[in-house]
Amino acid sequence: MGVTVAIDCMGGDHGPDVTVPAALAFLRSHPDARVVLVGQPDALGPALGDAATSFGERLRVHPASQVVGMDEAPQTAMKNKKDSSMRVAINLVKQGEAQAAVSAGNTGALMAISRFVLKTLPGIDRPAIATVLPSMKGQIYVLDLGANVDCSAEHLLQFGIMGSQLVSAVEHVERPRVGLLNIGEEEIKGNEVVKQASALLRDSGLNFCGNVEDIYRGSADVVVCDGFVGNVALKTSEGLAQMLTAFLKQEFGRNLLTKLMALVALPALKAFKRRVDHRSYNGATLLGLRGVVVKSHGSADAYGFEQAIHRAAEAAANQLIERIGGRMAAMSHGETA
Amino acid sequence: MGVTVAIDCMGGDHGPDVTVPAALAFLRSHPDARVVLVGQPDALGPALGDAATSFGERLRVHPASQVVGMDEAPQTAMKNKKDSSMRVAINLVKQGEAQAAVSAGNTGALMAISRFVLKTLPGIDRPAIATVLPSMKGQIYVLDLGANVDCSAEHLLQFGIMGSQLVSAVEHVERPRVGLLNIGEEEIKGNEVVKQASALLRDSGLNFCGNVEDIYRGSADVVVCDGFVGNVALKTSEGLAQMLTAFLKQEFGRNLLTKLMALVALPALKAFKRRVDHRSYNGATLLGLRGVVVKSHGSADAYGFEQAIHRAAEAAANQLIERIGGRMAAMSHGETA
Repeated sequence: MGVTVAIDCMGGDHGPDVTVPAALAFLRSHPDARVVLVGQPDALGPALGDAATSFGERLRVHPASQVVGMDEAPQTAMKNKKDSSMRVAINLVKQGEAQAAVSAGNTGALMAISRFVLKTLPGIDRPAIATVLPSMKGQIYVLDLGANVDCSAEHLLQFGIMGSQLVSAVEHVERPRVGLLNIGEEEIKGNEVVKQASALLRDSGLNFCGNVEDIYRGSADVVVCDGFVGNVALKTSEGLAQMLTAFLKQEFGRNLLTKLMALVALPALKAFKRRVDHRSYNGATLLGLRGVVVKSHGSADAYGFEQAIHRAAEAAANQLIERIGGRMAAMSHGETA
Repeated sequence: MGVTVAIDCMGGDHGPDVTVPAALAFLRSHPDARVVLVGQPDALGPALGDAATSFGERLRVHPASQVVGMDEAPQTAMKNKKDSSMRVAINLVKQGEAQAAVSAGNTGALMAISRFVLKTLPGIDRPAIATVLPSMKGQIYVLDLGANVDCSAEHLLQFGIMGSQLVSAVEHVERPRVGLLNIGEEEIKGNEVVKQASALLRDSGLNFCGNVEDIYRGSADVVVCDGFVGNVALKTSEGLAQMLTAFLKQEFGRNLLTKLMALVALPALKAFKRRVDHRSYNGATLLGLRGVVVKSHGSADAYGFEQAIHRAAEAAANQLIERIGGRMAAMSHGETA
């Protein structure tokens, strides 16, 4: 696809041990793609080995002397870490040397730096973060999962437009169904902002399919909500999935007999696990910026981080930014979405 | 325990076929308790059989000629159904003939009628609905799950006080840990209302344990949130659990081999299912009223409905209303919770 992805190799819980092997695996599976590995050259060396030369000009290392800490305040990272791997990777997108950046670093810093360096697209008040989750019917995109905790109805409309363009670009769905996360499918339900957003979405020209009560049913392609509600839904899901997994393990681990049962049932249990493997869904897209930025989970392994790189490359190759920008420009001239 | 529970036998998806057997099972397991079965005597007859006489004065039927529809608007039910089984059951609590009412009918109507008939306790602006969920460490109470979608920080504080008293009363925990549902455990996180609520809860004298990001971890006994967020968390959980169950069934049902695996693993799978059986958690408590009202899930079976009756009886026997009333009165005299 000819896309160049800038990779913040120092971010995340594992740093280069995960990010470098993931980048190499990505290069192997995408023969047209290029990567720029950003970080401290000494730190990248061990994981890189002789791959530094074997990919030719498809791989290069771009030095950055600093690292943004996982718990560092976004403002501190902005002010004091101008040569951080995170910032340098985003600078490469700004300068046109890469079409997308990927980082497993601290979300707040990534959003703040991306917004400062890349700026938002015209008509977008607040960038948002979209993630993808499994659903009964495949998968579903949910936004906002960022820090937009006090949203207006107009913000939710913008999220709908951006989410719709994201699904069009990367899933090749022509008119994605956009749903509004609400506590009942009737139009009268919900708080004031949600009621107003419902009216705006209905008149927007988007393929609005109304209120969605259960994300996982898969009745929409994109579900829109404010960042507070989105994060609650995500954290609740992660918590419940962890609890159910722990209970299942406990029941199968109870005694020798149940352990044998587990052994017999292993293929089916593994197939089940693969199907809801969170690593496959890794990579949340920052939307509304003048450049593609994808956030990997901090604890992602190499397989998970590779999926995030893949998402970033897909979005860039399919003109995500141009699509969102074009749609916002058309809206400002009175056209519907 | 000598408590009398008024049961709306006509509510729910199944009506007397579920409510009457549940009431009889409750009477068998609680030799001191009494029930008043409220509904159309002809409709109760078949399910009641000769039980009408075998429990002596512990069971009586109180006729009510009307039924509130599951989709009926609360205002219509209030105005046109003054002799509904739901309203008559709540009237019995008001009149002191029962100490608690249970209904599987329409939530909106139940809340509206309960509020109109029983009134709120002094100092309570809005009644709330609390439910109980399984957690890694046992179980956890969550409120609000009602219709309080635009809450102030003071409302969240009131929910904390009511939830704390509920857990004290029915779980016999002296100082329940109260958490605030938020999108990060740091104090700076969350929307404005949540930040203010955090400050109020910290100064309230409650055993406030700070922000809770994951309900299921079990780091609190009570988790407080507004009705919108609470309902999103609950519906998301239900949806995810349904999806995971469906996927697990599909993987074990894929072919003859996996079906045999499931057969072998059945005891462990059943033990797992029992542990998270939603029927055991049935019965959400309406809090802040001058009387105990418990809402059963509309689709509950007899086992589930019996749990809801049990919850109502426990709350009444342990003076839930007096506890909340006493706490609110003390607060209004400047004492902390």
